[in-house]
Amino acid sequence: MNETLRTLNAHRSIRAYKDEPVSEEMLDALISAVQRAPTSINGQGVSVVVVRDAAKRARIAELAGGQPYIAQAPVFLCFVMDYYKTQLACHRKGVEQVTHRTLEAILAGATDVGIALGWAIAAAESLGLGVVPIGGIRKSPKEMVELLGLPPLTFPLVGLVLGHPADESQLKPRLPMASFRHDERYHLEDLPGLIESYDQFMKIWLKEVGLEREGDWSQKVASVYQHSYFPEVLSVAKAQGLTVES
Amino acid sequence: MNETLRTLNAHRSIRAYKDEPVSEEMLDALISAVQRAPTSINGQGVSVVVVRDAAKRARIAELAGGQPYIAQAPVFLCFVMDYYKTQLACHRKGVEQVTHRTLEAILAGATDVGIALGWAIAAAESLGLGVVPIGGIRKSPKEMVELLGLPPLTFPLVGLVLGHPADESQLKPRLPMASFRHDERYHLEDLPGLIESYDQFMKIWLKEVGLEREGDWSQKVASVYQHSYFPEVLSVAKAQGLTVES
Repeated sequence: MNETLRTLNAHRSIRAYKDEPVSEEMLDALISAVQRAPTSINGQGVSVVVVRDAAKRARIAELAGGQPYIAQAPVFLCFVMDYYKTQLACHRKGVEQVTHRTLEAILAGATDVGIALGWAIAAAESLGLGVVPIGGIRKSPKEMVELLGLPPLTFPLVGLVLGHPADESQLKPRLPMASFRHDERYHLEDLPGLIESYDQFMKIWLKEVGLEREGDWSQKVASVYQHSYFPEVLSVAKAQGLTVES
Repeated sequence: MNETLRTLNAHRSIRAYKDEPVSEEMLDALISAVQRAPTSINGQGVSVVVVRDAAKRARIAELAGGQPYIAQAPVFLCFVMDYYKTQLACHRKGVEQVTHRTLEAILAGATDVGIALGWAIAAAESLGLGVVPIGGIRKSPKEMVELLGLPPLTFPLVGLVLGHPADESQLKPRLPMASFRHDERYHLEDLPGLIESYDQFMKIWLKEVGLEREGDWSQKVASVYQHSYFPEVLSVAKAQGLTVES
């Protein structure tokens, strides 16, 4: 197994950080690599806001529903889905951008942000940094837009905490491989059994790591997915001009 | 610079492949690493369909709008946004899943697929394989759903061609860093000038690599984004049960 595979396989989320800055050299190396990530039609519809300011990080920690490691770690990256730059490109050529009113653009844009985030995680961990991705910024998207001065046709999709780890959290077990990898076609017949065995396993594992309140995997998923859990996302996306008309 | 950063920085899309299989060992290593990628609330709402079957790859090459390397390379991975497995989890706990009717779920799900795709690209290239991501499967999503037997609440979001490279395509220059990285807040005032200088640079670069028909970056973006370019995405997502009600 090579170093890249070792890095990916060792990924874990870190929720406690040392009081130690991330050097500008490290951050430059990370962000340069992330910008090399491919994007749909080479549209490059991703931007990254780098937040070092402590007051701003404290505010984001609140906005994300109370996640103290955002304030504790020295760097917060906000990954922005960005159809503002591409609209400038359209205007340069005298046409109006239409794509930001389609589900296609939402899917392609979020996928591109995901690729960039995935590369940021890999790059950070290869440098010995700890990370935790923060979907919780979608709890208060309007406030995030204001705090980071985001223009129309952009959306603050996901964050990433970066710092020097002060704990060694454990690798979280995944669903059985047969539920993830499907050869030639999707195999749904085995899923109920695979999920049941994973639930039984996770019930024991969560207890071992002190998270027995989560119950098991299905319990955690059901507790969140039975609700519309970040209810401001649609209205703020619309206010930003990102709509789903076709 | 470490091996992981070198791998990420060397990424390029490969559109010509050797007639040489990808070993099962390599594919296992790659997909195991990809399954370690983090997901929103650990929902693990991603599945990967591995297509080796040549007739199926030839069909996907057509469905994606005529992309012959899908038929030429030995492996095609289809990355699926998957709220079917999480619905099974909800049903195990006696509740109905609601999240798949929200924009939040579309954004979180596509971001998670993007992270997985980003890791697959990094893993493949670290193993010496070539790749090209295929958004074109969203041109014919209904046919992809049928071909791969995808259940309700799933969507075939993006593909990845995998094989041994038979060409050495060049690194594609990116927009200036100042348009990608924004310190503390989004800086929109410099964007027009940055895009203009990139267009001037790309016009020359595209000519050098024989792609002068693309004009420059803004021309390429404008030619695609002035249209709703994969118009079946919304209706097929709805037919799959993935809606944007809130």
